[in-house]
Amino acid sequence: MEPYLLTPGPLTTSLTTKQAMLRDWGSRDAEFIRLNARVRERLVELAGGRGTHVCVPLQGSGTFLVEAMLATMVPPGGKVLLLVNGAYGKRMIRMCEYHRRAHTALEVPEDKPVDPVAVDAALGADPAITHVAVVHCETTSGVLNPVATIAEVVARRGRRLLLDSMSAFGALPLDAARVPFDAMVSSANKCLEGVPGMGFAIIRRAALESARGHCGSLSLDLHDQWVAMEKTGQWRFTPPTHVIAALDQALAEHAAEGGVEGRGARYARNCGILVSGLRALGFETLLPDALQAPIIVTVRMPADPAFHFDAFYDRLAERGYVIYPGKLTVADSFRIGCIGRLGEAEMHGVLDAIRDILKDMGVSRCGPA
Amino acid sequence: MEPYLLTPGPLTTSLTTKQAMLRDWGSRDAEFIRLNARVRERLVELAGGRGTHVCVPLQGSGTFLVEAMLATMVPPGGKVLLLVNGAYGKRMIRMCEYHRRAHTALEVPEDKPVDPVAVDAALGADPAITHVAVVHCETTSGVLNPVATIAEVVARRGRRLLLDSMSAFGALPLDAARVPFDAMVSSANKCLEGVPGMGFAIIRRAALESARGHCGSLSLDLHDQWVAMEKTGQWRFTPPTHVIAALDQALAEHAAEGGVEGRGARYARNCGILVSGLRALGFETLLPDALQAPIIVTVRMPADPAFHFDAFYDRLAERGYVIYPGKLTVADSFRIGCIGRLGEAEMHGVLDAIRDILKDMGVSRCGPA
Repeated sequence: MEPYLLTPGPLTTSLTTKQAMLRDWGSRDAEFIRLNARVRERLVELAGGRGTHVCVPLQGSGTFLVEAMLATMVPPGGKVLLLVNGAYGKRMIRMCEYHRRAHTALEVPEDKPVDPVAVDAALGADPAITHVAVVHCETTSGVLNPVATIAEVVARRGRRLLLDSMSAFGALPLDAARVPFDAMVSSANKCLEGVPGMGFAIIRRAALESARGHCGSLSLDLHDQWVAMEKTGQWRFTPPTHVIAALDQALAEHAAEGGVEGRGARYARNCGILVSGLRALGFETLLPDALQAPIIVTVRMPADPAFHFDAFYDRLAERGYVIYPGKLTVADSFRIGCIGRLGEAEMHGVLDAIRDILKDMGVSRCGPA
Repeated sequence: MEPYLLTPGPLTTSLTTKQAMLRDWGSRDAEFIRLNARVRERLVELAGGRGTHVCVPLQGSGTFLVEAMLATMVPPGGKVLLLVNGAYGKRMIRMCEYHRRAHTALEVPEDKPVDPVAVDAALGADPAITHVAVVHCETTSGVLNPVATIAEVVARRGRRLLLDSMSAFGALPLDAARVPFDAMVSSANKCLEGVPGMGFAIIRRAALESARGHCGSLSLDLHDQWVAMEKTGQWRFTPPTHVIAALDQALAEHAAEGGVEGRGARYARNCGILVSGLRALGFETLLPDALQAPIIVTVRMPADPAFHFDAFYDRLAERGYVIYPGKLTVADSFRIGCIGRLGEAEMHGVLDAIRDILKDMGVSRCGPA
């Protein structure tokens, strides 16, 4: 029995998306080249980047894309301001250390969004900063960062924005024409509901053209990948053909659901059911509703000594619902995702299972200490 | 209609291997952790590295693994001798440039194997060299490099061997107990007949333990990946779960076929049918039989003006056989692979199709100029 994955990924995908992997494609064959071009074009359109931005896909997980973006777009002589409110922001610090890029971090607690006023002040104080990087939705807590306002500040200050929209792109609106960014990266396996194994960058063409020779890794060099793909329509190195075919199918299903609007509406319904159901059971969610992105919900660990998370996790998994442990430093917690091929039935299903398991465990109070 | 892929990859896989991708796995769930551990263990066993070597899997194509191996295993103060007789050897030069690793290349023409005597002389002449890197089977031409003899020379000279066995591992024997190497990399999608999207390194444990802090990329840092995986059984960053599940199934089918011996025997039969059939049609293969690995066959382009490669390629594809263009600088050529889930029927099939197409094209002489 295959469980539902209520996690930030890998997540539950449709059977038809997985069935698109039942074929072997020759990566240099015309039919695959057409499929790849179709996927790239669709992704640029989804980001509102037609005519200004290009799509550069890359093998690997989302982290590979974030690292490729930082190493390709920030020149060795540049300096990047990293806006950090969770594990993914912190990981960008590590990446800059690996690639020896000058950087400074503006950190806020994990349950708070990045503050555009502080970004403005930081940019005013340090003229050496050339780029600003921020995570759209930090799945560490599920908090939504105000990327549109941040983009405005960054543009007004004449700097370049790099966006990690891994867990938001495809469900939350992002329009390159209104939210100016030099590069945005995301993954096949988040809100687009493809399978994991590749991601992509949407990059302002002019910025990418001047990024030649920046990256310290051949495999992660998005400029090199782009130049080769423009020339031949092919990937430089063996592409994950099955994963790309699955993304092609997933994009068709995304369009059929009404695109970003339709996908986002389903996730918002999922999130609403989850949050109100958890609160009705006595749980406390970490974030106030205004900061909660409809991607993943962080729940404070119950203080009741009868509650044991490992047993709770295992029994939920037995009932067919895989949730996610917490990653917070500010509070003991666990997380339940609302993305992937899941709807109201699965949200009510996991809430029913939680109610039954709590009763069996003899947990009477679900609030935190 | 799905064509047979007679290429160096992506290649034709079994339906059952692809069907293993019809499930979504939670990457932090116990069942997936067991699957991942089973795959890693099996790969170490296949390399004869039990007790001495460990398996570090990584997202991406084979190139990602080669780059990760060079950047992780060669310390910033080291120097690597690159043995080059084709495009994959040349690519290692680029990788060393990207990562600023001191290197020197020993190049021979693409239709010649690397010469162990020259390696010995190069090591004798340059005491700064700490590592030697070589491609096991160079699919640029299909030539087999004498890795066992090279390993002996490298060991005698007290240096460390890094092996790119991308297109050979799983079909050609390689035993870490007899062929000493510090690291060997390969891919899920070559002779193991999994799907593309991940590769793996088999690394001498002691060498990996001292490789901390070498790699200039977080995503490609095999030491960091290994330490995290040893601790939790999990991948650091979202793994391509479907691709790994396919590799698990592909490894079971590899074992059922008789392991390296059985797989290698089928490929050798494929290669024999192909080479003798092509010669019977008047084609000339690039390599003498003694140098020909049973992986991919390079065929010299016919001189007959009635032969047009693009049309030949397209018509073969229409008949269901995808071949590969040439990549040689020494001779105009094309390539036909003999790996993947293909057997005698498909080899005779492609030969029949070639015969028909040549007749239609009015090609009378298949030899080169």
